Amino acid sequence: MTPDRSSLIPALKNVATRLRIDSVRATSEAGSGHPTSCCSMADVMAALFFAEMRFDPHDPKNTDADRFVLSKGHAAPILYAAWAEAGAFDRAELLNLRKIDSDLEGHPTPRLPFVDVATGSLGQGICASIGSALNARRIKSDYRTYVILGDGETAEGSVWEAADTAAFDGLDNLCGITDVNALGQSRATMWQHDMDALAARWRAFGWHAIVIDGHDLDAILDALAEAKRTKGRPTMILARTIKGKGVSFVEGKDGWHGKAFKKGDELDRALAELERQFVPAPAGVNLTSLIPKPAARPRAVESPKPVAPPAYKLGEEIATREAYGVALAKLGEADPRVVALDADVKNSTFSDKFEKVFPDRFYENFIAEQVMVGAAMGLAARGAIPFPSTFACFLSRAYDFIRMAAISNVGIKLAGSHAGVSIGEDGPSQMALEDLAMCRAEPNITVLYPCDGVSTEKLVSLMAYHPGPAYMRTSRPKTPVIYGNDEAFTIGGLKVLRESSSDVATIVGAGVTVFEALKAHDQLKASGVNVRVIDLYSLQPVDRTALIAAAKASGGVIVTVEDHYAAGGVGDAVAEAVADAGLALTRLAVREIPRSGKPEELLDRFGISAKHIVDAVRSVVPALK
Amino acid sequence: MTPDRSSLIPALKNVATRLRIDSVRATSEAGSGHPTSCCSMADVMAALFFAEMRFDPHDPKNTDADRFVLSKGHAAPILYAAWAEAGAFDRAELLNLRKIDSDLEGHPTPRLPFVDVATGSLGQGICASIGSALNARRIKSDYRTYVILGDGETAEGSVWEAADTAAFDGLDNLCGITDVNALGQSRATMWQHDMDALAARWRAFGWHAIVIDGHDLDAILDALAEAKRTKGRPTMILARTIKGKGVSFVEGKDGWHGKAFKKGDELDRALAELERQFVPAPAGVNLTSLIPKPAARPRAVESPKPVAPPAYKLGEEIATREAYGVALAKLGEADPRVVALDADVKNSTFSDKFEKVFPDRFYENFIAEQVMVGAAMGLAARGAIPFPSTFACFLSRAYDFIRMAAISNVGIKLAGSHAGVSIGEDGPSQMALEDLAMCRAEPNITVLYPCDGVSTEKLVSLMAYHPGPAYMRTSRPKTPVIYGNDEAFTIGGLKVLRESSSDVATIVGAGVTVFEALKAHDQLKASGVNVRVIDLYSLQPVDRTALIAAAKASGGVIVTVEDHYAAGGVGDAVAEAVADAGLALTRLAVREIPRSGKPEELLDRFGISAKHIVDAVRSVVPALK
Repeated sequence: MTPDRSSLIPALKNVATRLRIDSVRATSEAGSGHPTSCCSMADVMAALFFAEMRFDPHDPKNTDADRFVLSKGHAAPILYAAWAEAGAFDRAELLNLRKIDSDLEGHPTPRLPFVDVATGSLGQGICASIGSALNARRIKSDYRTYVILGDGETAEGSVWEAADTAAFDGLDNLCGITDVNALGQSRATMWQHDMDALAARWRAFGWHAIVIDGHDLDAILDALAEAKRTKGRPTMILARTIKGKGVSFVEGKDGWHGKAFKKGDELDRALAELERQFVPAPAGVNLTSLIPKPAARPRAVESPKPVAPPAYKLGEEIATREAYGVALAKLGEADPRVVALDADVKNSTFSDKFEKVFPDRFYENFIAEQVMVGAAMGLAARGAIPFPSTFACFLSRAYDFIRMAAISNVGIKLAGSHAGVSIGEDGPSQMALEDLAMCRAEPNITVLYPCDGVSTEKLVSLMAYHPGPAYMRTSRPKTPVIYGNDEAFTIGGLKVLRESSSDVATIVGAGVTVFEALKAHDQLKASGVNVRVIDLYSLQPVDRTALIAAAKASGGVIVTVEDHYAAGGVGDAVAEAVADAGLALTRLAVREIPRSGKPEELLDRFGISAKHIVDAVRSVVPALK
Repeated sequence: MTPDRSSLIPALKNVATRLRIDSVRATSEAGSGHPTSCCSMADVMAALFFAEMRFDPHDPKNTDADRFVLSKGHAAPILYAAWAEAGAFDRAELLNLRKIDSDLEGHPTPRLPFVDVATGSLGQGICASIGSALNARRIKSDYRTYVILGDGETAEGSVWEAADTAAFDGLDNLCGITDVNALGQSRATMWQHDMDALAARWRAFGWHAIVIDGHDLDAILDALAEAKRTKGRPTMILARTIKGKGVSFVEGKDGWHGKAFKKGDELDRALAELERQFVPAPAGVNLTSLIPKPAARPRAVESPKPVAPPAYKLGEEIATREAYGVALAKLGEADPRVVALDADVKNSTFSDKFEKVFPDRFYENFIAEQVMVGAAMGLAARGAIPFPSTFACFLSRAYDFIRMAAISNVGIKLAGSHAGVSIGEDGPSQMALEDLAMCRAEPNITVLYPCDGVSTEKLVSLMAYHPGPAYMRTSRPKTPVIYGNDEAFTIGGLKVLRESSSDVATIVGAGVTVFEALKAHDQLKASGVNVRVIDLYSLQPVDRTALIAAAKASGGVIVTVEDHYAAGGVGDAVAEAVADAGLALTRLAVREIPRSGKPEELLDRFGISAKHIVDAVRSVVPALK
């Protein structure tokens, strides 16, 4: 039975004190961490975990459980303390904080079953929480999503992208709490304790905002109840708090961010003071046993149907970006978990083909790439298969999110269109020339780069079901279909498009340069020179064995050609794969900042057209020199 | 003599009509571009360029000239039209828009003398304009900075980082104008024409906001005057406009974003309608001749003094991040153009050493990396030498800005601390393991990675005066000083730290791995095996000749070792440099998502410690197998 407020409050107060003690003790034991950032939010955490959220400490991933996202990830110790307090694991474990063999890391990662997405890069948790809230709507669950932000964190622009998006989507199942402790790492925050100014910002972005004393448990409970009653828009509770609350010699003091109390006198004083804050509580109130469990809600299993196969004619021209849209719509038909996210370029990436059929599973983020990727992280963590897409160059706007998605190892399926100089007249600001470098750098991101309609469709399905994050690069120009509709593709594969018994070199292209390589092949062949041509559609992983075999069968000479800068793309992928095979590698890539012009002019000007491939072969093959 | 309003308005109206005609004509000639996005802002452009700004069309870079930044870069044609109208170049040139041999690119780049920074990735121009406004304060100039944003653009979080920063800095010399045409690329904007809601947002962020009809020239002139009178905070003019204004068959219509009128009937109809909009204007009013020139303001030339040399003892321990702070303060002493920008980690990057001496040249952006880098771009474009610094991993938050800084080729001097797993317990979210990949991908970014105090100080000075953008990676742990205070360094250089006539391999390290390589050297030497050790402090450019020479003198074997993921870092830099030298290359790098732990534990767990180097040498050197 839920205790009444007069019994609940002292019990929660004691929970908050225990959470403070655990946070202080664990960070001192680790010798580093953020106890003062934990102490400011302890009362809110106590109320959330022991008088608000519905969850099962032993089944944290339950489909209908309320979600908690710690956007201010540096307060990890109190997150761990709360789950220990709830009984998820033994409190003694907390003292292993930050040790190499413990999953209680310095900042939360999904190595822990109760963490949906890694946090610790500020301004990201709130974006992921939007994905979590959208997912509840998708699966028709009444679970609510709670997210705690730091006040300093709200300087991140991504927080305001999230604010816009959550308001636009009317996410009344989302409740944010800002821990306004007024101190950043190196100084006071910009807005300090100006609670009215902070509330005005959230209200101006369409949220319901509530200002409270973040150490007043009554006020916290009232605010959470008000948030739950508020319909049609999300709520932000702005909790005025004191950094280091409970340890008087650090309360509200600058210079204590990210500092553990030194073991010995300093720690002892802190702990003694905290211990004195326990209050008499009514006997028999066991808050942990009272945590409401999520409703056992029977659901039809969402089993995917087969994806409709490609239906192209050989030689038919279609841009891979358009084939991506076709594929996405087909995939959406086959699997209700597939959702798409856009940043106001759906008519260029062709994700609008998906929207037309599945408007309820299409999320518009307007021109805000960070929240698009962040929301996708939250969706993926909750069981959806999200495809966020925009121009590939603008994915660089969300690189920190992509980095954290890799750390989280969540299955976001990124698609970037308009790769390279082949976009033409729009100029360098719209050309992605570092997207492969960006995504290949993350060791667990699958990187795919199809050249025609068939391979695009096949690879979209493969990436959907391949575990972990993935990236597909698509192109703006139309290219001819070169594969039959029943051609098989694999992640980590490649295709040998031309070969003979007298090849003198292997040309490795991907995307638009496959067609430059084929042209070069034909031109060389006309002059009696045979070369092998490879479509390297899978850039991470790479089919090392096939690459080496092809090169060895063609005089040990490889020429790579890519519509990407020289570092981090096709050339580097091939170079690392064949590093110890004793091959001669020549790379053609874009080696300077490009400019506006016609696509074919630019391919030529920046050294990646058929002509340059022919020249490269002639200059590196010993017999042709 | 300035004409009175009754003469001025019709003259401006005709300028606006000409700007519309020029934008429509140029995009139709190019066959692509954004005429409707130009038409909505034509009246504002006419007022800004011909009744507000002080500039010299023939000396656009004048130190005291008012600045204009087109944050909505896709409206480039009207920017070009305005400068042509002002007499900067022949109007006939406008018809070369988007051609490969014209600098009138699809989106503005500083190839044009009147463009300070490239725009076209939305939400960046307003950040750069903050740098421009800060620079006016730095050089004590009264020039004002004007920036036009699209309304769709304000979905970008970076716009709100800029809003916060400009308000905090009290930039009353900055005036923004939002062209609220209510239509994005693919649909209506989120806030459409809800002008009160838009104004509330800017007011909540501390700006003075003025709502006007953006086609009412009287209202535009009044608003600009009000902005000029407003002290202590920046002003945002929210101009309600119609997309495609002036061409009735596209006005306010969805589906016309980024579409040129088709030559022939469609274009003819548009032009005919625009031509009819010329109004009778008083004779003798020549607005171009009336553009107020910037005051000729004599200034002492800011000539730099020599930078104080490093003052370390060999073997003394100092983290490179701390040496960076020391170097920055010394550089600031030598050169008044040097400024520093922070994102609330100044006490970790040690940029606070600069702030303590030069508080007026230190700009705090709180936790907002995008505006930090964007403001640096604006500062660099106006003659300052800006050093924005934060944790290296959080520079990924600003990758799109770094990309645009590369396109702009502006001299921002990025510094990222806390590189790699060697940061230890904070865990993967705080570890930069893709920053080298990110920066090396841009062909014109200089990438430096010092290992000790002396090299850090020397390289900070070198990067300050090297043209174009540069990145320095620094480390968290203390490392011993290994170079004498008078050691010379060069961009593109390296240091051979150990060598003998019997080396069997060359180990290439950088940063913290230099010390692992030195340890490996000593261990191998103790067992009678000699290896060469290289400190590759310059990763872009790389000293190819010296690398090949070292490797050839050591059995043709190279082992690279880096505290970075395998793709895009030291290994790839070395591999490309030596690609055609027939060497055997082995790379040690972090190949999976790391975790929390002690630095030395992590170096070992993730395969980049001395032990792993020794093992690698033993496994790849034929004679040791």
